[in-house]
Amino acid sequence: MTLNTVWAEIPMSDTAKNTKNPIRGLLTAGVRPQSTPRSTKSIINMSMGDPTVYGNLKTPVGVLEAMHKHLDSYKGHGYGPATGLNVARQALADKYSDPENGVNYTSDDTFLATGGSGAIELAMAALCGTGDSILIPRPGFTLYKTQAVSRGIDAREYDLLPENNWQADLAQMDSLIDSTTKAILINNPSNPCGSNWSKQHILDIIAIAEKHRVPIISDEMYEQLVFSGQVFYSTASLSKNVPVLTIGGLAKIHLVPGWRIGWVIVHDPINVMNSVKAALVNLCAILNGPNTTVQLAMPEIFFGDFNAAHLDFLKKTLEENARLVEKKANSIKGLRAITPQGAMYVMILFDPDVFDDSINNDSDLFHTLLWEENVEILPGDIFGLKNSMRIVIAPPKEILAEAFDRIETFCKRHYKN
Amino acid sequence: MTLNTVWAEIPMSDTAKNTKNPIRGLLTAGVRPQSTPRSTKSIINMSMGDPTVYGNLKTPVGVLEAMHKHLDSYKGHGYGPATGLNVARQALADKYSDPENGVNYTSDDTFLATGGSGAIELAMAALCGTGDSILIPRPGFTLYKTQAVSRGIDAREYDLLPENNWQADLAQMDSLIDSTTKAILINNPSNPCGSNWSKQHILDIIAIAEKHRVPIISDEMYEQLVFSGQVFYSTASLSKNVPVLTIGGLAKIHLVPGWRIGWVIVHDPINVMNSVKAALVNLCAILNGPNTTVQLAMPEIFFGDFNAAHLDFLKKTLEENARLVEKKANSIKGLRAITPQGAMYVMILFDPDVFDDSINNDSDLFHTLLWEENVEILPGDIFGLKNSMRIVIAPPKEILAEAFDRIETFCKRHYKN
Repeated sequence: MTLNTVWAEIPMSDTAKNTKNPIRGLLTAGVRPQSTPRSTKSIINMSMGDPTVYGNLKTPVGVLEAMHKHLDSYKGHGYGPATGLNVARQALADKYSDPENGVNYTSDDTFLATGGSGAIELAMAALCGTGDSILIPRPGFTLYKTQAVSRGIDAREYDLLPENNWQADLAQMDSLIDSTTKAILINNPSNPCGSNWSKQHILDIIAIAEKHRVPIISDEMYEQLVFSGQVFYSTASLSKNVPVLTIGGLAKIHLVPGWRIGWVIVHDPINVMNSVKAALVNLCAILNGPNTTVQLAMPEIFFGDFNAAHLDFLKKTLEENARLVEKKANSIKGLRAITPQGAMYVMILFDPDVFDDSINNDSDLFHTLLWEENVEILPGDIFGLKNSMRIVIAPPKEILAEAFDRIETFCKRHYKN
Repeated sequence: MTLNTVWAEIPMSDTAKNTKNPIRGLLTAGVRPQSTPRSTKSIINMSMGDPTVYGNLKTPVGVLEAMHKHLDSYKGHGYGPATGLNVARQALADKYSDPENGVNYTSDDTFLATGGSGAIELAMAALCGTGDSILIPRPGFTLYKTQAVSRGIDAREYDLLPENNWQADLAQMDSLIDSTTKAILINNPSNPCGSNWSKQHILDIIAIAEKHRVPIISDEMYEQLVFSGQVFYSTASLSKNVPVLTIGGLAKIHLVPGWRIGWVIVHDPINVMNSVKAALVNLCAILNGPNTTVQLAMPEIFFGDFNAAHLDFLKKTLEENARLVEKKANSIKGLRAITPQGAMYVMILFDPDVFDDSINNDSDLFHTLLWEENVEILPGDIFGLKNSMRIVIAPPKEILAEAFDRIETFCKRHYKN
């Protein structure tokens, strides 16, 4: 054996090169030094889309009781089928069937995945291969593009219009579709927009999908999290002729994002999705399903009596926080919040023209605000919308209030003379 | 909106088409009807590589206690970093560092994954893109080929030689490597072979990797599970000049395969793997890490006092079962067990020439044995070795004994006149 051989650096694969998470790049780069003094205030995190960060929002005790029971039963320690335990798949079918609207699922229509992330990956890979295209929203959850590009899928972005309640630009959506397009991905309620679409808008998108014979992937991770006066419509419940792959998960409603339980549910009102269901079966083999103990607990998690009060509390808390953030932001010159209707985000537009030269763009705002006030938001350009920032509204009210006091101080310091 | 439009069946993507699990095809096809009467005996499952099926092998109570504690702390409910919680990464670095052999890990060298499956996927995708090639063992764990082909990676199989203690055919391994080859994947102790390689054999493989400047992916999911007189050598501990990505997981040793916790650890003795570590960081973004509650419990799971007694019991049970299966099989004409040295499998070769026309090949043996005796094994050709069957030795001794009584009856029924 030759010792001391000289190796060159081992290169990363093209797959890995093409798999990029812009949020990670931003956050791991850390604080960018500024000429001003570094803030000594405690950090306020309004950047992570994780409702559990501050401990004010907790999964119900009933969920933990179910987990304790199933851990001790030793019945959730072994492998499940790669597509999910039947008890979990049946729970999904029971929960999401909506016979009044022609939505009737069996357990075979449901597929468990490693979180919402894994569910998006499954749905996208089932429909799209290398060289195919998919429509995704802009601004939108960064993982859509990360995953599409990783698999060589052309991610074409349609605009969501802030002045129009974040509705999609339908003419543009229609124009982006060609013969390579295998899916239209929508996300409602939206991360990062905090919007909840009207029934008519969803019907308009379904009509475009129908015109082009393209299935819809509907990411409904924030389903149910809508505010007073809003009604959430699942895309499947409105679609009589277009197949819909609905993405969901336990993360945001049951407040356990770290448990990594997501799912894909196939709505196939015109019976054209048998190959795609077989595709999902194939793709599930790669990871062999998510945590089986949590899967066993899904009937209790979905149908436990504690759910109604929990959901009320969660929605009320998020709505109060949303109103606080909107009001605070709109009281600050140069900022404008788009009224949120659901999910757990508020998008705030900012006008770089009112600020001095240190705040020319999203990146400046992010870095300078973090340096000077220790307030961490996400710059909107990460999601595809310049001159904006995304605020996570899950932290406690007093933390959000403190954050906006600091943001106000910050803005005053940086207004143009 | 046009109603009653006619859609064609929506096709599955090429990615999904190329993602095939041969075991699933076999098992979901179910019992193939035979002309003889169907067995009314209870099913005996020696097919699933899941040690928890029969309940005789259980995760230690200390593992469950750690899980209960961390569930109630609410600290394992949120997202972790996509590469894993630092407490879990540090536990891996602490457990697997081996300074005496020049193996020194920091938490940055470790990457959490969704089970061993997710770890294999990460390691493979970090090194290999579409059009690259990887060497994999034959017979070998079916997922290697499934995952490689799914990503357009050319999976080249080197033979493991049953007559030579399942050592790799080194000349063939050497000959399969060319400029497209980005990794040599080995699996020791082996599924399905139940072998444990000698130090010298691993050194010989390292020398081939060094000659071609190709990193090794060493799947050591069954590390520690070796029988009396055997010593397990981790590839990293023997490699002074070749980078090694070690695959591991909680599944087999801690008896929680359903929890989906695996890992990749990068051994980089010559400092050429910084890009590959960056690749693993990129790829972790796709799924955002495995279950965080289990990750939090990893220090207790690894270092709890209960581990020594547990591992002794597990090894003793598997070894006794292995000896029973070997002895039983070798007492039956036409069958020959290759002496197992570890993991939880015994490979049994069978001679189709001694059987009647109903048992011509692996598929015949699988289907006829299941139909007539309700004994489920896996046919060796699934793993790439014809005229063999893989026996899982985790079931209770009396079940295994009963299975081989039935197999003996079955063979006697099917010997050629």
